[in-house]
Amino acid sequence: MSPQRKLLLLGTFVHSQTPQTLDIFHSAGIAVDAEGKIAAIERDASDSSEAKARLLERLGWDEAEVDVTQAADGQFFFPGFIDTHIHAAQYANAGIFGKSSLLDWLETYTFPLEASLSDLSKARRVYARCIRRTLSHGTTTAAYFATIDVAATNLLADLCLSMGQRAFVGRVCMDRAEIVNPTYYRDASTEASLEATQQTIEHVRRIDPGFDLVSPILTPRFAPSCTREVMAGLAQIHRETGLPIQTHLSENAGEIKLVSQLFPEASSYTDVYHRAGLLTPRTVLAHAVHLSEEEADVLASKGAKVSHCPCSNTSLTSGAARVRWLWDKGIDVGLGTDVSGGYSHSILEAARQAAMVSRHVAMNVDISHEDAAVAEEMTAREKERVKLTVEEVLYLATRGGAKCVGLEDKVGGFEIGMEWDAQLVALSHVRDGGELHLHDDAEGEDDHGFVDVFGWESWDDRVAKWLYNGDDRNTKRVWVKGRLVHRR
Amino acid sequence: MSPQRKLLLLGTFVHSQTPQTLDIFHSAGIAVDAEGKIAAIERDASDSSEAKARLLERLGWDEAEVDVTQAADGQFFFPGFIDTHIHAAQYANAGIFGKSSLLDWLETYTFPLEASLSDLSKARRVYARCIRRTLSHGTTTAAYFATIDVAATNLLADLCLSMGQRAFVGRVCMDRAEIVNPTYYRDASTEASLEATQQTIEHVRRIDPGFDLVSPILTPRFAPSCTREVMAGLAQIHRETGLPIQTHLSENAGEIKLVSQLFPEASSYTDVYHRAGLLTPRTVLAHAVHLSEEEADVLASKGAKVSHCPCSNTSLTSGAARVRWLWDKGIDVGLGTDVSGGYSHSILEAARQAAMVSRHVAMNVDISHEDAAVAEEMTAREKERVKLTVEEVLYLATRGGAKCVGLEDKVGGFEIGMEWDAQLVALSHVRDGGELHLHDDAEGEDDHGFVDVFGWESWDDRVAKWLYNGDDRNTKRVWVKGRLVHRR
Repeated sequence: MSPQRKLLLLGTFVHSQTPQTLDIFHSAGIAVDAEGKIAAIERDASDSSEAKARLLERLGWDEAEVDVTQAADGQFFFPGFIDTHIHAAQYANAGIFGKSSLLDWLETYTFPLEASLSDLSKARRVYARCIRRTLSHGTTTAAYFATIDVAATNLLADLCLSMGQRAFVGRVCMDRAEIVNPTYYRDASTEASLEATQQTIEHVRRIDPGFDLVSPILTPRFAPSCTREVMAGLAQIHRETGLPIQTHLSENAGEIKLVSQLFPEASSYTDVYHRAGLLTPRTVLAHAVHLSEEEADVLASKGAKVSHCPCSNTSLTSGAARVRWLWDKGIDVGLGTDVSGGYSHSILEAARQAAMVSRHVAMNVDISHEDAAVAEEMTAREKERVKLTVEEVLYLATRGGAKCVGLEDKVGGFEIGMEWDAQLVALSHVRDGGELHLHDDAEGEDDHGFVDVFGWESWDDRVAKWLYNGDDRNTKRVWVKGRLVHRR
Repeated sequence: MSPQRKLLLLGTFVHSQTPQTLDIFHSAGIAVDAEGKIAAIERDASDSSEAKARLLERLGWDEAEVDVTQAADGQFFFPGFIDTHIHAAQYANAGIFGKSSLLDWLETYTFPLEASLSDLSKARRVYARCIRRTLSHGTTTAAYFATIDVAATNLLADLCLSMGQRAFVGRVCMDRAEIVNPTYYRDASTEASLEATQQTIEHVRRIDPGFDLVSPILTPRFAPSCTREVMAGLAQIHRETGLPIQTHLSENAGEIKLVSQLFPEASSYTDVYHRAGLLTPRTVLAHAVHLSEEEADVLASKGAKVSHCPCSNTSLTSGAARVRWLWDKGIDVGLGTDVSGGYSHSILEAARQAAMVSRHVAMNVDISHEDAAVAEEMTAREKERVKLTVEEVLYLATRGGAKCVGLEDKVGGFEIGMEWDAQLVALSHVRDGGELHLHDDAEGEDDHGFVDVFGWESWDDRVAKWLYNGDDRNTKRVWVKGRLVHRR
């Protein structure tokens, strides 16, 4: 990485303080050093230029060595999004899933595409586009599933590094020679699976020795694709290296039934991973839709994390995961797009779908009690409680995701010592008149997408408008570790 | 309206043939006469220029009198969308609803905004933006609720006419002096409510005497806002004029309970409208989430239509409407954005949310049978059946909506004699390489939004990709009645 210039960011900043509260501060400044770390935050100035002067003085920085980005009136800086579960290889299939559910979707759509990415020119085209698109939607960190192919997986790591996206890159282990894995797309043996995993780990160690931007992640696809031996082998690598782990858990009824048949010794799907030694504080489990109380308790006791993938869970009719319940259990939750089980690669879309899915969970709350009036009141209260707010889904998209992937001290919020992974957000301001023009583009009016601010909205309302109607057009700049990696 | 030039549209066309099938034809041409009607369709040519030559010859048209639009390779023409339920006044609140449900949402967010639009400069700003944005998303026909204010409602009709959007414009009747309607926002009396309705009808008759583009629509807000007398009065106007009717039905549990208290003589919410004479083949009922079998049978027998508003129903935790069940009953269904109960003004978004909500309905299917194996199989089959396909939700967005608003002979598909309400859709083609460029815009690569086509997709897959990830950037041209009303 070439040495970076220092940064000064000036204007309005919005980030999560707690799951329930956004911290919004204006006329402020954040100073970022040449390593991409937040060196100072100034929030008591009367305007941006005062904030700038104070920061330069406090840090003893010369203005000539600093790049200044001033957010325009109405714009704001927001932490970069963290996608805790995305299949880079499946990006090319986004939106294509028909009426399938998990197991037939894998067979019909997913395995053929993944297998075809052993063609490196195809892999480069799909992976580069996936990284570019997710960056343009403000995803500064992604936990990627690649494919079983080592060369293509290593290419994904190369591309993340060169395009500047913070990433966890997982070569997918699927060594079971029966049931789910097709003959044309599986590891040759358990040994071959573990050896291929090591090859990707070594490759990433060569290109990013400290795993500063790109890290390998141990990736047993999901229990039905894996032998006990490969899972135990990956758990052993985790114990030796501390590398993180990602897999799928309890997504779909058919899958759960299959797991119980394949692993009769286990008391539950969760117990399969528990027995293999795969449940750790560095483990990210995608979906967790149909967990029992006992399974959730095991996850909580092991400190394992859940990646909530609302778009995927609805698209594939998997179910509706209960985020409030997972939180009640003390489990950390982040958001995953799960492209292409989920059709959208946008974490902002995942955040709004998390809000929507929580409302479907609310619709199904039905608490029984011998006194009907008490039951009605308890049900009403619980319905309210399980709904996720704007603040909560934006927390999931940032700090929640950071906790999932073990980066809560580095990214997800604006604190001194954290790294500058952030986006600059702009909304459209509605002018008077103008309604008769045909050419939006010629006027440059719609550069900021279709979130319309009329001017009377509170800042909370502006953030809500962005959450519910925002897209990549609202994301004008994206930085990772202080480096500008996208602008429009 | 100034006289129009004739049109020739050349390239690929996609439209619904039945709810289950899309008709996709290539190297074709459609000729549109100066009145905006489809005069001829050529689908047997070997390429576009042959289609053009054949159409000119068949119709005896001179090329000089015709404007030709050639869809580029990969682009396609699609019927304009029909929004069967949208509150133009609430456009300014899109995305702002917090954790509210229907009745508190009305009080907190909606009535204050609607009341404020008696300021005509504010109304112009909000309405013009709403029309412009919905046109840019391909909505060629909208059934609008305005407010109780006559002048502002008439302004909305004026703007629809001048901006070229086909519209039904409803002055909202809310004459009940208790319960829901706030003192600061309600009609002064039943007589005043009916008189104000007549004033808007007369205004629209003056500006568009044949109701060719803009039509009044009788709009009792919903039963809790209306007296029996005003509903009977509106039914009388319908019988005298044939004007269409729109209102809300069975959206939310609290609302349904309130209706049963306010109208103890009625056997159901549906029966309130039935008794008032408001259920007709020209009636559009938004939501219909919690209908009983009997209520649905009444709607079917009266030929009344349902506007399905999935985004709103989820956002306000109203419930999940059962489109398949409504279809089974023989009820015509269209889509509504229900801005701002729904946060998005895009019917493409409504279509994908209809697909998603149908999956939540599927998740809750649970058929009982004394034989557990039979129950399981019946449940699985029914789960599959209630899911809506890509084809079905696009039908709802076009022909289904046209039936709802009584325009099925005019718009919603490409047939000779129908009017040219259509959009030209373009998707992005992924080039090789290019992954290191920061500037999407400078390359012009992302003009077409973020639906990425790699080139190997079938046409069905391309349409699915558009449905699930498309936005206004994919809609390059929009025509209503042959007039170009939007381009980017």
